[in-house]
Amino acid sequence: MKFSPLVQELIESFKCLPGVGGKTAQRMAFHLLERNRQGGTKLATTLNKAMENIGHCQKCRNFTEQTLCEICESPRRQQSKLLCVVENPADVIAIEQTGEFQGRYFILMGHLSPIDGIGPDDLGLDLLENELNQGQVKEVILATNPTVEGEATAHFIAEMAHSMDVNISRIAHGVPVGGELEYVDGNTLSHALTGRKNYQV
Amino acid sequence: MKFSPLVQELIESFKCLPGVGGKTAQRMAFHLLERNRQGGTKLATTLNKAMENIGHCQKCRNFTEQTLCEICESPRRQQSKLLCVVENPADVIAIEQTGEFQGRYFILMGHLSPIDGIGPDDLGLDLLENELNQGQVKEVILATNPTVEGEATAHFIAEMAHSMDVNISRIAHGVPVGGELEYVDGNTLSHALTGRKNYQV
Repeated sequence: MKFSPLVQELIESFKCLPGVGGKTAQRMAFHLLERNRQGGTKLATTLNKAMENIGHCQKCRNFTEQTLCEICESPRRQQSKLLCVVENPADVIAIEQTGEFQGRYFILMGHLSPIDGIGPDDLGLDLLENELNQGQVKEVILATNPTVEGEATAHFIAEMAHSMDVNISRIAHGVPVGGELEYVDGNTLSHALTGRKNYQV
Repeated sequence: MKFSPLVQELIESFKCLPGVGGKTAQRMAFHLLERNRQGGTKLATTLNKAMENIGHCQKCRNFTEQTLCEICESPRRQQSKLLCVVENPADVIAIEQTGEFQGRYFILMGHLSPIDGIGPDDLGLDLLENELNQGQVKEVILATNPTVEGEATAHFIAEMAHSMDVNISRIAHGVPVGGELEYVDGNTLSHALTGRKNYQV
């Protein structure tokens, strides 16, 4: 014996969420059924609307339900000559929260990964090439993750941008602020040493 | 700056799920948007259907989209004179998986908890009283959780059933099979000792 067909179907559907297995899916289904039907209905409506309407910004590839995202539409940002290339929309938020960067973004939605069949076209690099060809961007900041794939992706984009009279920079790797040297891995530490800067007295 | 309004709304909606905070909600939203729109749409449809159509079985209070659940509708089960009282639908599944029990269930959908304002009426005890009054049930098995609230609920139901010429039993508390005595808590161990049975040679 199992749950009734519709309850079973609901539990199965929850398993499409990342990190949700049988037990968690069951807990979610019962929680909504017992305590929060309104929330469940709202989730259903929003989910439906989101899956249908959210596409990619035509300039930076970020998720948006408009043609252009808020950042690409902002006149102040449009005048900026900096373009920051990141892997995911969440990275944009992380950088925006610093308040440090006032330029535009380009979101790859992943990284080069030949094993998974993800090539330059899947990352929208043709779109990025167009953008750079228009000559408005003076500097590309490569802010892909410091992983093997992220580095390879950064390298690939750097080579592409090299021929276009654009400055190319990579975000600094080093010891995280607030960290203790003792617990920093050797690779990071060697980056921190080679990337050392003159101390301003 | 935040995500686009619809993306933000989607992330907020996911927070109605138990154990899902801001970061997890964001991960879920991006996972569906990037990799599984089909799954997301299916989840939305099922969720909507479930929230609207799933009600309670009129006999045992289990979740079902029918008037009666599968167990209550089974003719073999209807003839059984055993009624097992549990707190949650998940408990029914746990007991069904043992294959040991062939009677019917009554699901309280919670336990007595005056602090949270949950009284006998919220647990459908009037429905249970009706059921017992019909005289078909010969034994009520109290299978509420062995917690303070579960025990209190069991006691309350036992008192109610006492006047109706119905046998009342409580599932056995003791050392879990496969467990080691050394690691069993004192309360359980004392239950195991007082509940000892004659050893059949």
